Parts: sequence; structure tokens; C-alpha cells
Amino acid sequence: MTKNEAVKNGVIFPVGAKNEAFQKYFIGQSYLQGLVNDPVVNVNVGNVTFEPGCRNNWHIHHDGFQLLLVTGGEGWYQEAGKPARHLVPGDVVVTHDGVKHWHGATKDSWFEHIAITAGTPEWLEPVSDAEYNQLEVEK
Amino acid sequence: MTKNEAVKNGVIFPVGAKNEAFQKYFIGQSYLQGLVNDPVVNVNVGNVTFEPGCRNNWHIHHDGFQLLLVTGGEGWYQEAGKPARHLVPGDVVVTHDGVKHWHGATKDSWFEHIAITAGTPEWLEPVSDAEYNQLEVEK
Repeated sequence: MTKNEAVKNGVIFPVGAKNEAFQKYFIGQSYLQGLVNDPVVNVNVGNVTFEPGCRNNWHIHHDGFQLLLVTGGEGWYQEAGKPARHLVPGDVVVTHDGVKHWHGATKDSWFEHIAITAGTPEWLEPVSDAEYNQLEVEK
Repeated sequence: MTKNEAVKNGVIFPVGAKNEAFQKYFIGQSYLQGLVNDPVVNVNVGNVTFEPGCRNNWHIHHDGFQLLLVTGGEGWYQEAGKPARHLVPGDVVVTHDGVKHWHGATKDSWFEHIAITAGTPEWLEPVSDAEYNQLEVEK
């Protein structure tokens, strides 16, 4: 059963179009609505929506950071070498400069977050099915 | 009649406590929940909630900017010398470095936005009742 299907219609902010620019760095389908992209503002703000099972590759923000504000559904955030963190609406994630990490939906839920990003991303290897499928929400 | 009363309980993110630190720069009661306040991140993120009629003073962000992501209710944003902009959920506001502006609720509605802020604020005069009370939503 798919959870939080209403999230695919957007939570407050629009879902936007299929995230084609970044598709090669994701497993599964994501959607991207730009919210702030201004040449004199040093952060980019976007609304990112993930179908169930969708996640981005491991990646690093160099000379910057990333802030996630979770607005809908259920997802995961993981930094390399640490346990994955289960995310629900209202959760906030801070990723520091240079930290290898990934984020995405749970297997059975749509997921949406606002991403506030500074710096230059370096995209790395995908999160394998073996890594991803073993993630379990703690009861 | 007061509109959007449910906003006072928070939209996705918590309302937080009475915004006592900034009370002297506001007319009416606001509430502030910090979301990101990290020494190595050059923006501060907070959830700001305004009771009906509440607005902040005219102010300027120096050596920075402010981004507002509207999550609940109805409000106003105005830059000096320009007409006020009526805000509803899903609206996004970008305030550039050095621009004098204010934001707040409409007379009859609760209002909530996420604020992403960089730089140093300079707080100026209040938005007078004369200025504020003449604002009307265009039909």
C-alpha cells in the first residue's frame, strides 16, 4: 500500500515538473519546483517531491551546505558512516560542507521537502538496493 | 471575524514561543520557532507566526537577504515606495540586500511564513496604523 499519496499534489508549495535535470543522479522519479533562484542570493531554494522508493545518489555540497525542511510524507536522510534517520513533516536536516549524504522517500510513501542549498554539489554513487531495502523504521 | 485561526497551531512546523526577543520591533503578538541556527551556516531559518493585525517594523537586511516562504493564512509584504503585496500560502518573497521593507498579517487573519535570513538587520520605524489600515486586498 502506498502511503501519503496526497503529497504528490504538493504540500503548500507546487510539486513542479519531472526533475529531468537531475534524473541521472536519482533512482526513481522525483519532481522539482524552483522557489528561489536569484543571482544575488547565495542559496537556492527548491521543493523536491519523491515517489515511493525514490532517492538521490550519495552526494556532497562543497563550499556550502544544505538544509532540508520536511513538508510531507515519510523519508530517509543518511550521512556516510551513520545510521539513516527517518523523516516526517516538521523535521529539519542540516548538512554541513563536505559531508557525504543522501535523502529520499521510504519504500512505501511519497515524500516532500524544501531544500535550501549553497555551494557546488558533487554527485557520487547510487544508494544500492541492498543498502536501501534494509532500512526499517524503528517501532 | 478572524480568518485562518488554525494557523496559530502551526502549519507543518511548530509555532514556538512568543517572540519576545523581537517584540520591540513588532506591533502585535508574533511567535518564533527557530528551525536552523548553526554557526557554520550563513543563513538563519525560523518559522514566524503573526496574530491578526501583527506586523514587524520597517527594516533592512544589510550584507544579506531575506526569503519568505508563506505557509499559512494571509499577510502583507511591502517594500518602501511600492504597493503592498497580498500573501497567501505558497507565495515566495525575495528581499535583496539593503531594501527597506516590512511584513505581517492582514487585519483579520493569522499569518505564518518561514524566514530564511542572512546578514544584519537594521530595525526602523513602525508601520503606522494609518499606513496599515488603508491596505485592501484587490478583488
